[in-house]
Amino acid sequence: MISVKAVLVVADGMADVPLHNLEGKTPLEVAQKPSIDQLTSDGICGMINVIAPGVPPGSDTAHLALLGYEVEEVYSGRGALEAIGSEIDILPTDLAFRCNFATVDDNFKVIDRRAGRIDNEDATELAQAISNSLREDPPDVGNVLFKNTIEHRSILRIGGPNLSVMVSDTDPHQAGVRLLEARPLDRSQEAKETADILNTLTQRFHKVLRNHPVNEKRRKKDQPAANIVLCRGVGQLPEIDPLPLTYGINPAAIAAVPLVKGVCKTAGMRLIPVKGATGTYETNTVAKARAAVNALKLHDFILIHIKATDLASHDYKPQKKIKMIEKVDAAVAHLLKNIDRDETVLAVTADHTTSSVKRQHSGEPVPVSITGPCVRNDDVKKFGERTCAKGGLGHIRGVDLMPILMNLLGKTEKAGS
Amino acid sequence: MISVKAVLVVADGMADVPLHNLEGKTPLEVAQKPSIDQLTSDGICGMINVIAPGVPPGSDTAHLALLGYEVEEVYSGRGALEAIGSEIDILPTDLAFRCNFATVDDNFKVIDRRAGRIDNEDATELAQAISNSLREDPPDVGNVLFKNTIEHRSILRIGGPNLSVMVSDTDPHQAGVRLLEARPLDRSQEAKETADILNTLTQRFHKVLRNHPVNEKRRKKDQPAANIVLCRGVGQLPEIDPLPLTYGINPAAIAAVPLVKGVCKTAGMRLIPVKGATGTYETNTVAKARAAVNALKLHDFILIHIKATDLASHDYKPQKKIKMIEKVDAAVAHLLKNIDRDETVLAVTADHTTSSVKRQHSGEPVPVSITGPCVRNDDVKKFGERTCAKGGLGHIRGVDLMPILMNLLGKTEKAGS
Repeated sequence: MISVKAVLVVADGMADVPLHNLEGKTPLEVAQKPSIDQLTSDGICGMINVIAPGVPPGSDTAHLALLGYEVEEVYSGRGALEAIGSEIDILPTDLAFRCNFATVDDNFKVIDRRAGRIDNEDATELAQAISNSLREDPPDVGNVLFKNTIEHRSILRIGGPNLSVMVSDTDPHQAGVRLLEARPLDRSQEAKETADILNTLTQRFHKVLRNHPVNEKRRKKDQPAANIVLCRGVGQLPEIDPLPLTYGINPAAIAAVPLVKGVCKTAGMRLIPVKGATGTYETNTVAKARAAVNALKLHDFILIHIKATDLASHDYKPQKKIKMIEKVDAAVAHLLKNIDRDETVLAVTADHTTSSVKRQHSGEPVPVSITGPCVRNDDVKKFGERTCAKGGLGHIRGVDLMPILMNLLGKTEKAGS
Repeated sequence: MISVKAVLVVADGMADVPLHNLEGKTPLEVAQKPSIDQLTSDGICGMINVIAPGVPPGSDTAHLALLGYEVEEVYSGRGALEAIGSEIDILPTDLAFRCNFATVDDNFKVIDRRAGRIDNEDATELAQAISNSLREDPPDVGNVLFKNTIEHRSILRIGGPNLSVMVSDTDPHQAGVRLLEARPLDRSQEAKETADILNTLTQRFHKVLRNHPVNEKRRKKDQPAANIVLCRGVGQLPEIDPLPLTYGINPAAIAAVPLVKGVCKTAGMRLIPVKGATGTYETNTVAKARAAVNALKLHDFILIHIKATDLASHDYKPQKKIKMIEKVDAAVAHLLKNIDRDETVLAVTADHTTSSVKRQHSGEPVPVSITGPCVRNDDVKKFGERTCAKGGLGHIRGVDLMPILMNLLGKTEKAGS
């Protein structure tokens, strides 16, 4: 028997709603995407309620669901997933927060949540200063690590035996109001202690930052000082069985943003770095496809994640979204041309709808198309939110996609005998 | 961003099965309903398995499901919902029974389950006698309230700390057999005591009623004496989060029958009384639509419930059912004409199938159509049990409807980030 492999292309937030200025069409319905349509024409399609009907998925929960995990059972916050995707080691007992360098006044009122979108150089020097302080005078609680990632973004990791994710953010999520005090969100001693630790660290970091030479220099240049670290999105690693254990596969992922990388890594997928894959509008989608074709020599399941379709909807740039969909199509074109179609399943979907009207994630289902050997193809010819609703797959849940793909690879186990 | 509101029209038991004497069509397929068809043509449609495929819903469980509640988790009997819909105060610890004034002979054999459909005047006088007796000589157990509602129907409420819904009915549900003794349905002390209380109260009420002047008068007129109170449908209030807490909405309901009113009130919906809304064939459906349009000034989610479509199927009157569907259409016509369609979601469905053949609720799914801003409309033109099965929504569960509507209103919360 032939050994079948699979490539799954997930375009972030690619699905949308009918838009007035596209004459009632969606970006997917307007975009020129001959290869995705070819895939749809050759295969079977349908709609995915990624989490549940009407529920807008986050990018983290969406990818967990599309990889077959029941989000309600396993999800425990974004922080740890993003941290592990940023190449920070995370133990099952660690907490991780997403942090911003930000600017506060003398009364701790937040002036700028991103410290004027501080550049990598300044952020690295300040993060180093915090790290040095933590090394010279270690806090009473276990292991604390602070690391900047891109611009104002950074990660705080706290390790120790008695921590709890049940703490509130210190980030007020808007400028003009005071820094928040972290509060326990349940009555446990662990939550109370974790909140105390977070508040203590926040004040310590402030002391390190407020008169740091980098900030003196910034003030002279009329740039907002990065004098506080705001924390949000606390999380622990989800306790999940990695895909190799569940399906006996050797999976890999090609993704540019830390959050999706983190989900894939946690799911036991090998991350494949691709030059030119940036997570921005300029990302080189064909380079990702090329890397996937290459990776098929070693791996039998590859996820390609493309981010910028989502950005275009948050920015309300439907034309840019259309262009990005056409770049996704270019990747699919490369895949169709270069994979052995007799031995490869190729699927395209989105991780969620991003409504260009609401400019945020929305709860409508997303279209999915699957082609490959032994697929029961249907008669839908075009990939879209309304065409795929008539497809042979019907409406499935996000967690159904992996078993459906793995069945095509002969990797699902019989229930019973 | 525009603030979107929603009106949901629920026609009780409107869905049906193909009928021989309608040439294999359903009442919905025969009725002239241009406005519901217009809504369907403009919007997206599908089928709802209100509880689960094949399961015939009750009107109480159906409305709980359509309002987004998992019936298996929250439902605890009809009595309390009907009581609260009849403007009787119910505490979370109270039990409530639906009761009939009925006629028994000297051996407690039931002669007439409705005491000759006793009129409101006689019923009120007898209920008053029971209330007086309860006041003069309060039973050992806590708080007992007895109140007649319409004709032979009445409510018995028992309050106290150690009660259980696990008791059987005293109503044998048919004439010609003896009054039943209430029995505990589990081994708990609470169930045993509740059964004892119910049996004691039944005998007490009988003593008050048997020689009451009203019954002496009825016997002289050859009317069946209302000499017993039969109890059934014990229930407690479901423990549910009200809709305003779950979705941040300000919901209202326009309904004529106590049971549906009770569900809506328990779900935290403001009840809007409408003159001419009777729950009968003569109900003024347009008056309900008018009240809904008016209520949209204060509320952002309004449920309109129309009862008589269901009555027609129980009575096996398909032509009357067709007429009632046309009255539902008149309400939808008024809504389509008078709401701001750029800012309002309008949905039509049924709470269950009522089979005119079985003359009772049946487990087939019901059609649903949704129109409004940003809806991914499909190409189905007519509202019906078979046309909507081809709609873009696919087959959803009853509990999915609220999240789908709330997503269109931007009221669902993102899962994850």
